[in-house]
Amino acid sequence: MRRTRWATGMGAGLLALLAVPAVAMADPATLRMADEGQLPVEVGINSIWVMVAAVLVMFMQAGFAFLEIGFSRGKNAGTIIAKILVNFSIAAICFWAVGFAFAFGDGGSLIGTSGFFLAGDNPTADFPLISLPDGTITVEALFFFQFVFCAVSLAIVWGTTLERVKFGVYVIYAIVFSAIIYPIGAHWIWGGGWVAEQFSVQDFAGSTVVHLIGASGALAVLLLLGARRGKYGNDGKPRAIPGHSMPLFGLGVLILWLGWFGFNPGSTLGALDGRFPEIAAVTNLGAAGGVLAAVAVMWLKVRKIDIGMAGNGAIAGLVAITAPSGYVELWAAPIIGLVAGVVVVFGILAIDKVLDDPVGALSAHGLAGIWGTLACGLFTSDRLAAKNAVGEPGLFYGGGLGQLGNQAVGVIVAFVFVFSASFVTFWLIKKTYGLRVSAEEEEAGLDISEHGMYGYPEQFIPAPELVGYSPANAPVGSATPKATTREVPA
Amino acid sequence: MRRTRWATGMGAGLLALLAVPAVAMADPATLRMADEGQLPVEVGINSIWVMVAAVLVMFMQAGFAFLEIGFSRGKNAGTIIAKILVNFSIAAICFWAVGFAFAFGDGGSLIGTSGFFLAGDNPTADFPLISLPDGTITVEALFFFQFVFCAVSLAIVWGTTLERVKFGVYVIYAIVFSAIIYPIGAHWIWGGGWVAEQFSVQDFAGSTVVHLIGASGALAVLLLLGARRGKYGNDGKPRAIPGHSMPLFGLGVLILWLGWFGFNPGSTLGALDGRFPEIAAVTNLGAAGGVLAAVAVMWLKVRKIDIGMAGNGAIAGLVAITAPSGYVELWAAPIIGLVAGVVVVFGILAIDKVLDDPVGALSAHGLAGIWGTLACGLFTSDRLAAKNAVGEPGLFYGGGLGQLGNQAVGVIVAFVFVFSASFVTFWLIKKTYGLRVSAEEEEAGLDISEHGMYGYPEQFIPAPELVGYSPANAPVGSATPKATTREVPA
Amino acid sequence: MRRTRWATGMGAGLLALLAVPAVAMADPATLRMADEGQLPVEVGINSIWVMVAAVLVMFMQAGFAFLEIGFSRGKNAGTIIAKILVNFSIAAICFWAVGFAFAFGDGGSLIGTSGFFLAGDNPTADFPLISLPDGTITVEALFFFQFVFCAVSLAIVWGTTLERVKFGVYVIYAIVFSAIIYPIGAHWIWGGGWVAEQFSVQDFAGSTVVHLIGASGALAVLLLLGARRGKYGNDGKPRAIPGHSMPLFGLGVLILWLGWFGFNPGSTLGALDGRFPEIAAVTNLGAAGGVLAAVAVMWLKVRKIDIGMAGNGAIAGLVAITAPSGYVELWAAPIIGLVAGVVVVFGILAIDKVLDDPVGALSAHGLAGIWGTLACGLFTSDRLAAKNAVGEPGLFYGGGLGQLGNQAVGVIVAFVFVFSASFVTFWLIKKTYGLRVSAEEEEAGLDISEHGMYGYPEQFIPAPELVGYSPANAPVGSATPKATTREVPA
Repeated sequence: MRRTRWATGMGAGLLALLAVPAVAMADPATLRMADEGQLPVEVGINSIWVMVAAVLVMFMQAGFAFLEIGFSRGKNAGTIIAKILVNFSIAAICFWAVGFAFAFGDGGSLIGTSGFFLAGDNPTADFPLISLPDGTITVEALFFFQFVFCAVSLAIVWGTTLERVKFGVYVIYAIVFSAIIYPIGAHWIWGGGWVAEQFSVQDFAGSTVVHLIGASGALAVLLLLGARRGKYGNDGKPRAIPGHSMPLFGLGVLILWLGWFGFNPGSTLGALDGRFPEIAAVTNLGAAGGVLAAVAVMWLKVRKIDIGMAGNGAIAGLVAITAPSGYVELWAAPIIGLVAGVVVVFGILAIDKVLDDPVGALSAHGLAGIWGTLACGLFTSDRLAAKNAVGEPGLFYGGGLGQLGNQAVGVIVAFVFVFSASFVTFWLIKKTYGLRVSAEEEEAGLDISEHGMYGYPEQFIPAPELVGYSPANAPVGSATPKATTREVPA
Repeated sequence: MRRTRWATGMGAGLLALLAVPAVAMADPATLRMADEGQLPVEVGINSIWVMVAAVLVMFMQAGFAFLEIGFSRGKNAGTIIAKILVNFSIAAICFWAVGFAFAFGDGGSLIGTSGFFLAGDNPTADFPLISLPDGTITVEALFFFQFVFCAVSLAIVWGTTLERVKFGVYVIYAIVFSAIIYPIGAHWIWGGGWVAEQFSVQDFAGSTVVHLIGASGALAVLLLLGARRGKYGNDGKPRAIPGHSMPLFGLGVLILWLGWFGFNPGSTLGALDGRFPEIAAVTNLGAAGGVLAAVAVMWLKVRKIDIGMAGNGAIAGLVAITAPSGYVELWAAPIIGLVAGVVVVFGILAIDKVLDDPVGALSAHGLAGIWGTLACGLFTSDRLAAKNAVGEPGLFYGGGLGQLGNQAVGVIVAFVFVFSASFVTFWLIKKTYGLRVSAEEEEAGLDISEHGMYGYPEQFIPAPELVGYSPANAPVGSATPKATTREVPA
Repeated sequence: MRRTRWATGMGAGLLALLAVPAVAMADPATLRMADEGQLPVEVGINSIWVMVAAVLVMFMQAGFAFLEIGFSRGKNAGTIIAKILVNFSIAAICFWAVGFAFAFGDGGSLIGTSGFFLAGDNPTADFPLISLPDGTITVEALFFFQFVFCAVSLAIVWGTTLERVKFGVYVIYAIVFSAIIYPIGAHWIWGGGWVAEQFSVQDFAGSTVVHLIGASGALAVLLLLGARRGKYGNDGKPRAIPGHSMPLFGLGVLILWLGWFGFNPGSTLGALDGRFPEIAAVTNLGAAGGVLAAVAVMWLKVRKIDIGMAGNGAIAGLVAITAPSGYVELWAAPIIGLVAGVVVVFGILAIDKVLDDPVGALSAHGLAGIWGTLACGLFTSDRLAAKNAVGEPGLFYGGGLGQLGNQAVGVIVAFVFVFSASFVTFWLIKKTYGLRVSAEEEEAGLDISEHGMYGYPEQFIPAPELVGYSPANAPVGSATPKATTREVPA
């Protein structure tokens, strides 16, 4: 959790309060500017960094989109664009309306209860933990940063559902997730909730809060959704269903890697403690470890450099280093990443035997998220435990097994809560609206069946029998074919 | 317009002047650093934010490129890369040479007349409105920020011309637009010109100045250029001409969305008023509203989730929230976006009946730009009208119809001026150089006819008869086929 | 070299030391915050800018990847994703372990010898030139910024090797390059080494240190690797081998252009001298000149707008303006870019006659890098030579030929050292592991032969005879086909 940062910030705030008279005497110009609507420079500096970080994290939506597009077959490529746009938009509304208040609003151990719609006149009262007396960061900066985190977590949920889920499922669950499930999980660990109060879970940027929560939802929907047609043969053995574009997959990975330089270093929620460059360096070493381990393991197994595993190694390394990024020294980062790279390969190969997770999200975000969270219990250094004022040093710094236990509690609570809440939600959707398109629609591809157009129209020919979308009302400005079409027979 | 910001800045500048003695006494170290070439920290902070924003806006060129590439057929995909590179380069030279001076240089109500080539020794005199006594921002930061805005507006112009315009048209019009048309429009509304003097038009980041101006040029060229071959049947009814890649279209949309976090929040031209995070949040809510409304309307009409309309809904929401982003409270943002999402769908469907606008630019940038500008007349809050010191609160805040009238004046003036000037320019081009490739070239595609190479060479086979580009001088290092090629017969 | 900046920084540092008592008296609050772990605001501001710049430069990896993907045939597109991920990861580990210490650690004229693993307790002692008394920038920010520069240089090396190099070659050379070759070259010119001591080479952001060094390695490997099969006919004449996607090539170019706004303006290593916006403007004008000249030259030669040359013109303009970006006035930038655009076209056409450089890297990074470095000897202004305190004004400012000579020394030393060291390394690799895949593998494409999967699996059909990668252990979560496949017969 980020209690540390709140605590540090609170301390700095009190200090600043004490310092105000000194400042007033020393620098009347600054105060006069503040009277005129100029903020103290510290607020500007911190807010710039947090907003830059938030914008990088926002762009991770494109990263998830293209990772998934690359791993999908061409007939299911266009749907992902619509999915990302709609999910992100729903989350934007819901997290603003209630999610942010539930997660970070003033309230009890269970849920925040103030600051809905960011409409209060007194952000400091509505969000006591984050809106410090000296205004370390504007409340909108914190809101936007936390929103894009929620949107990342939501994007992770859908990794297991490619090529067969009904579009409406996104709409329903996105509301529940961004308004309720994610905010409650975040409140418990980051927002001063009961987990933060009773266990000092170290999760600097969200290996658990963002990635494991997303993967827990992903597991819930997958269990109810089932595998893609043809994924398992009559002998029950899995068959690989290659995606259609490794370059676009790689684009996704590289955009995600880029976004992570907002994700982790931005979780300082400011720039003036000077830690963000160190956290960026730690993050990069973790990612590097993930790539190299995943590539090495696959090479040892099949004597090939596996492109998909190289990318998933990067993601796993980044996910794993997310919780420890503010708690561990540089030397630990590549080790954490290397382990994550090994975990993700064996995780993907093992899970594939029983569950159809087309992009490996359960391993890259789930298993690597668990590993990263637990890694704090091993690698958190004296220096950084103290600096964050959260928890104890890890086992390798003589901290015993206590912190490891706290980390395990965080993992278990997050998984059990999110998996249960998501499973119930998806079960209700399945019993009413349904989770899955028909076999014919799946065969034709989601692009044509859910969207009435192909993602790559030139590679397909018209299929008049799949009508329901007549030329008369075809949205001409939007590149839609005038009639539904079908795949060229292979 | 941004008069507000100039006024605020001017006030802060005067204040700072008064404060200089106090600063001098209080903090000699700072002054000594300034003597050594260190700027006051405020200038550094503001300039960082503005440059970050400018870089995000610069990347919107890739957004426009891929939105258009996705909506083009494969035989016209490569040309867009050349188009973006050449347009952006021409604008870079012209806006530096004269455009910036015309737009923001010291001068009369009609046009700025100082600061050509940024060559003056006294930026404060050349650009009195922007180069404040305390150097709130460096003149080069403002220049670069305003240049990328001009380049966005220019990119919008070409949205209606895909798949049939001659490449040379870009070159000629780009010069006129970036040197003269855009700067004059910007001067009138943002640069202290006669519209700013006589009407208090609220256009925080350019729904009118950037988007409507671009769309006005787009309408002018479209009227003279005509529809693509085959767009309208013998019965005069439109036929959809699907683009070739929804994933690449989606990449464009997501990059544009990203860039808008520079576009709107950067239009504060600084960070120390602390407003940029709020403006980012407003922007995002507007975009979300646009996506959800466009998707909902299409679903009600055709029971499909339209991918293209989802993307155009995002663009429309972003365009519409651009003018109000600094004037409206959070609650108004999703409403403005929702209306934009409805407007863009009906606009695209209606316009398509008579005009061939392949990407829907007239609706997404034109109609949504008009709506966004007018929306200030409805939604501008007391607080923000006062903060910006431009115009009155909107109708819903008891401000009456006055501001709405001012907004309408802004829209009309910008449209009439830019449309007229552009129409004349394109008319002259049509009468001399010509606007449109031959029917054979259009059929073959612009990639091969204008560039001598295909955008996707592997999908085509050589067509020796379309020669004129011999193997001998093929630019081998640039992936050009050794001979011109033709499409595989479908 | 950046001696200037070190010198300036050193001066500012000394000044700040003197100023500490004044600060202490004037602003106790600031000091108290520093006691509590808050940095002086100056450090935060500078570090934000440098980290933003570093993140932009990091994303240039995606730029190089897509430039190369676009220029490769479809059967060699996926390999580039794996290549970029693995190279970047290796460089991350090696540059952290030893490269940064060799390049910028305290030490002699030949090599730095302190700060390995960034593990020292006293960064100021380990990196005396960069870690100033007033902490102008955190050591991790400088490390990360310099690392992404090293990674760019490494990416440039591989531009000549597309479609035929063995994957293991990347692994071996990446270690040598990022641990030894690049750091030594950087130390000599930027890190206070013998070239910096004896010649005042002006290379603000690395036309020589990054781009020419990369291109020198690229030439070395190319000479040993040879041309792609079919590149030269029996008559010895070159044949164009078109890449498969101009849109993806364009994506790469636009991402690189974006990244350059970190590359050059970030090389100020801070924001408080206020120069970074000017450098961004200079950079953009250089790029624009490159595009326009390359397009114009090709149009004059073949009456077509060459897409690839437009992109390579942009890269050449950017490479050429890199060294002068902190030394020349705005007016000189488009001229330097224009010359670079001419150089790159003629360079590509000439080199292609004898060497198979698929992306034109030798010209775009090598020749343009040399031109840009020499251009300082012509265009460096009085003002900026003095501001940087490196070298003399250029010939056109009355500085005589002295500086031009110094620049030539920098070029020659960098080329001779890197080419020699790389040639030996690649020669050893060739004699042991081998540089090049077999003719059959080259024919099948690197994707299937090195990675066991196609980059575009749907465009190919299974090829059971190319086994070695059985269905049993196919990495199912990673989009790998269950068996190796072969190309559809054309």
